Amino acid sequence: MKLLIVGSVAYDTVKTPFGERTRVLGGSASFSSLAASFFTETALMGVVGEDFDPGDRALFVQHGIDTLGLRTVPGGKTFHWSGEYGRDLNEAKTLQTDLNVLATFDPEVPESLRDTPYLFLANLDPKAQAKVLDQVKGAKVVAADTMNFWIDQRKEDLLALLPRVHILLINEAEARQLSGEHSLVLAGRKILGWGPKRVIIKRGEYGVLNVSSEDLFAAPAYPLEEVFDPTGAGDTFAGGFMGSLAQAGNLEPAAIRRAIVMGSVMASFDVESFSLDRLRSLRKDEIEGRFEAFERLTSF
Amino acid sequence: MKLLIVGSVAYDTVKTPFGERTRVLGGSASFSSLAASFFTETALMGVVGEDFDPGDRALFVQHGIDTLGLRTVPGGKTFHWSGEYGRDLNEAKTLQTDLNVLATFDPEVPESLRDTPYLFLANLDPKAQAKVLDQVKGAKVVAADTMNFWIDQRKEDLLALLPRVHILLINEAEARQLSGEHSLVLAGRKILGWGPKRVIIKRGEYGVLNVSSEDLFAAPAYPLEEVFDPTGAGDTFAGGFMGSLAQAGNLEPAAIRRAIVMGSVMASFDVESFSLDRLRSLRKDEIEGRFEAFERLTSF
Repeated sequence: MKLLIVGSVAYDTVKTPFGERTRVLGGSASFSSLAASFFTETALMGVVGEDFDPGDRALFVQHGIDTLGLRTVPGGKTFHWSGEYGRDLNEAKTLQTDLNVLATFDPEVPESLRDTPYLFLANLDPKAQAKVLDQVKGAKVVAADTMNFWIDQRKEDLLALLPRVHILLINEAEARQLSGEHSLVLAGRKILGWGPKRVIIKRGEYGVLNVSSEDLFAAPAYPLEEVFDPTGAGDTFAGGFMGSLAQAGNLEPAAIRRAIVMGSVMASFDVESFSLDRLRSLRKDEIEGRFEAFERLTSF
Repeated sequence: MKLLIVGSVAYDTVKTPFGERTRVLGGSASFSSLAASFFTETALMGVVGEDFDPGDRALFVQHGIDTLGLRTVPGGKTFHWSGEYGRDLNEAKTLQTDLNVLATFDPEVPESLRDTPYLFLANLDPKAQAKVLDQVKGAKVVAADTMNFWIDQRKEDLLALLPRVHILLINEAEARQLSGEHSLVLAGRKILGWGPKRVIIKRGEYGVLNVSSEDLFAAPAYPLEEVFDPTGAGDTFAGGFMGSLAQAGNLEPAAIRRAIVMGSVMASFDVESFSLDRLRSLRKDEIEGRFEAFERLTSF
């Protein structure tokens, strides 16, 4: 089934212990739509400036992604994020954020996308996420991501969104921040009480914990020799997860679990290179190979 | 098959966000032998002082543990450790260590235990671990644990021990400290190069990563609503692991994986109460129930 992803499209300047890159393609919607495109028909919604490289738009198109909803603001500049990672690659230090065209992003969903059955509201102002949701009347499965900034600054908007989403994706520190609970099981259950049917807690190199009223599912991260650049790992996870779920076309526990592992597989590729470099050249047989390796890694 | 465990038997004074306990039974060999006793015939070797409570010895005996090797030093005092945990229960802050009788522990293995086929050298001075190994000539499967203090102070002794053990159990920070590698996959492989056939890296609330030349296996920790006291979790893991392995009687990958999950199950019980309180009252059907819950938690 078709999946619509709305979120940021950005240029990132990133430094890790393994090197640095200046103004490379990034943003929550870029990572997640590229990851999703390996599994299902995907449309990308976002906003960029006139500086956005046609080659970057072509990358999406080459992967079969519908970019009708990727709007260019005349005279505007693309959102820019700059950050740095130390030896502990679990957390980025943000050096600079230039919202640019994202600051005034007022998402208007093209008519042809308003009945998309699967919708992923990638990390974005919760008000903008709600506005998209208002318009996609045909959405049957809705997932949302968020971040510490919105929990701090827009908690009410975020809490208003939660009853309207089926699945909340959130990282470990943010789950604790949002819920006020240290235990992730308690944090997940508290957040369930605010609306979503399922909370998927992303733990970086430690994997994923999925909490719903019916079940718990835990998956480790795929162990890599080196993580070169963790930027976008959570977004890539989300894209692989939602793409796999849309491909399955149902919310049965087996589909959810397989989707979580597919998300983990995609994230494990993402962090092997800077920006979208590894996803760009990724082949389906490599995905299948790593999924099988994941089965060998975890089965007992 | 029979399992011999040598390590510390201690009195612990522990403070966690959930309360505190003064001079309660602890020590690496206490936790691990009690955990192992649910799976296989277990013998405990260690040293205590005259202050050691007969009721504590009786606890081991009640669980069928052979305490012939638990020596009492006349006039001596039992090893005492005092520590504190903050909200992040992954790491203890040591407040005080009184080695007492452990300082001069010169392990002499009783004749009847010298052909024990499974041997676990719980956390202890690597010189003392080697001395035990010298005496247990019948040992077919040898595992060892260690800690940051020995890596700092007795690295050469530890490196001399490694080629003589099949399995090294070590926690995440210590694996990095010993190997000088940040990536756990690389850390594990480097340690494999020093002798052991298998390195089991314990990651606290994040589970376990098993590295050998043939395979990787990752298991999450069982997600609990609350961790009341993490003291002994690693030792309890090791005891459940070695007990299950000795019960299986072979080192096939299936037996190793089952043993790792059994270790995780036992550790998840340990942290539900202070000291050995939860293990003390634990029933076999509870262990089986949580093993099944672990299968539901991780299968996809």
